[in-house]
Amino acid sequence: MDFDVITMGHGSGGLLTQRLLRAGVFNLFKNDFLGQQHDGAILNLSGKLAFSTDSYVVSPIFFPGGNIGELAVNSSVNDLSMCGAIPKYLSLAFILEEGLRMDEFWQILVSIKAASEAAGVQIVTGDTKVVEKGKGDKIFINTTGIGIIHPHANIAVNRVKPGDKVIISGNIATHGVAILSTRKGMEFETTIESDTAPLNDVVRKLLDAFGAHIHFMRDPTRGGLATVANELAGQSKLGIDLFQHHIPVVEEVEGACEMLGLDPLYVANEGIFIGVVDTTRAEEALQLLHAHPLGKRAAMIGEVTSQHPGQVILTSKVGGRRVVQYPTGEQLPRIC
Amino acid sequence: MDFDVITMGHGSGGLLTQRLLRAGVFNLFKNDFLGQQHDGAILNLSGKLAFSTDSYVVSPIFFPGGNIGELAVNSSVNDLSMCGAIPKYLSLAFILEEGLRMDEFWQILVSIKAASEAAGVQIVTGDTKVVEKGKGDKIFINTTGIGIIHPHANIAVNRVKPGDKVIISGNIATHGVAILSTRKGMEFETTIESDTAPLNDVVRKLLDAFGAHIHFMRDPTRGGLATVANELAGQSKLGIDLFQHHIPVVEEVEGACEMLGLDPLYVANEGIFIGVVDTTRAEEALQLLHAHPLGKRAAMIGEVTSQHPGQVILTSKVGGRRVVQYPTGEQLPRIC
Repeated sequence: MDFDVITMGHGSGGLLTQRLLRAGVFNLFKNDFLGQQHDGAILNLSGKLAFSTDSYVVSPIFFPGGNIGELAVNSSVNDLSMCGAIPKYLSLAFILEEGLRMDEFWQILVSIKAASEAAGVQIVTGDTKVVEKGKGDKIFINTTGIGIIHPHANIAVNRVKPGDKVIISGNIATHGVAILSTRKGMEFETTIESDTAPLNDVVRKLLDAFGAHIHFMRDPTRGGLATVANELAGQSKLGIDLFQHHIPVVEEVEGACEMLGLDPLYVANEGIFIGVVDTTRAEEALQLLHAHPLGKRAAMIGEVTSQHPGQVILTSKVGGRRVVQYPTGEQLPRIC
Repeated sequence: MDFDVITMGHGSGGLLTQRLLRAGVFNLFKNDFLGQQHDGAILNLSGKLAFSTDSYVVSPIFFPGGNIGELAVNSSVNDLSMCGAIPKYLSLAFILEEGLRMDEFWQILVSIKAASEAAGVQIVTGDTKVVEKGKGDKIFINTTGIGIIHPHANIAVNRVKPGDKVIISGNIATHGVAILSTRKGMEFETTIESDTAPLNDVVRKLLDAFGAHIHFMRDPTRGGLATVANELAGQSKLGIDLFQHHIPVVEEVEGACEMLGLDPLYVANEGIFIGVVDTTRAEEALQLLHAHPLGKRAAMIGEVTSQHPGQVILTSKVGGRRVVQYPTGEQLPRIC
């Protein structure tokens, strides 16, 4: 590209925008949809579709284990997967801050390309805006996705019933701790990396095998496992029992949380999900997860109960029981 | 709502986020899709779909004739319409700056609701993020839309051919001048209001009547008519002749542009579009536009030619001819 940093002119819609798009986006992501260079993409699709949006404001934009670009792709892929869909198409919209280094933007674009290829989704339409220095923070990304609902999927919170098992696909709190380790005044020595990953392959295999026996799925991103469990309890009007000694956490993450005074239950994740599975198939579902690279540390961490509707109760390692509340404030700003 | 300003806690995913969403979004926009409160919406759709995304960073967020909320809805509705689609569903994603006044956010939400109802589209899924004061600018919005391609539409730049007429649906440069009139150091007395409006109704009527005789459409937003004409010339590999005395501009807008040293051809629009129409039906198409509230000032402003391929040539009011170039820098930052 011709310039070292993003300027306001790159957001003008004029020649600089054209040049940036041709060099940086159309060339890199080239496919028939982008080739149309229209105001939108024309897609041929039929049936039940999932449609999901997220804006990403993670800070810093490069962090141990990833960057905002691959996070934006993986996370939207995961939102679609949680609906029981096979992700197909993403839109990609940037809000760039004047002065963003072109090499950083380029590195993010390359990561987006790699992540979308890894997840088997296509970037089909996009938008680029530029704001003045001090009116943004390097780069914000919106990805909005369309997926096709898996033919055997029937994911809905009203299908959750007492006796269902709560399964988690991997270690908790990894992403949040990886981001925190980079924050000013909080730096600490760690090898912990974000768990950002596309969950569509493992979810598809789960739906292939167990179909409608998977009653509900959600990825515990902002607000962590505690928030998802509370949403599940609130929306299903049932109780959730969690068992702390089954919840997988890497020792180093647990140590970091202790040091920082954080409860890992509230710390953000990116590459794991919660599945609520019919009790008759839960053990098999767990075995399937264990056989997948993204599910090696999967565990059955709780169950749904008609007791204490709307409430999440955690049985601690030493056997005590406590209510797990929604987080009330902001523990970890701009984690995703 | 409980709080006077947006705080970082509203972006936590926890209790404050839940409260904001329940009071401000789910209640206001309530429909069956949002009622699912899932990571995405499940839609039943079939056939050829249009998919389009845009982020909005307009400054100021309230301007003569509108605000960033209705702009975001109308503009995404228009992008879908330009693809020949009937807009159906929008996603809605906010990046809020800490300290945004809650009453301003509420007013924007109410405008979004009104604009989506006016355009007949549903907000079906969304996202809210919060960034620290000084890392954003009050509010940025992404809307991403899905529409169903009109059964008789066949809009594609490769359908544009020599002899086709170029029609514009209304006055140019209104939006840009309305925004500029609010900018610091540029304030001037004016009654000019943004032309933001949903174009789906007028476009649908045009496609109902003329179907595949409409070869191409685009709305001249950022970069104005000059940019769209250049995109059209570049992508079609044909020439575009424009006739200045046919291009509709309100006198007050023309005066403001003169005062500011701007060429109205490059100034942004929001509620108008360019149609490239088969010459056999162009006159009728113009009549149809004239009968519509959003097309009263429609005009035939030019034609497609095999001469000067890739170039836009304007015949001035006094008969001189000049090449209309792409804008090279940024005239009017953050116009949409």
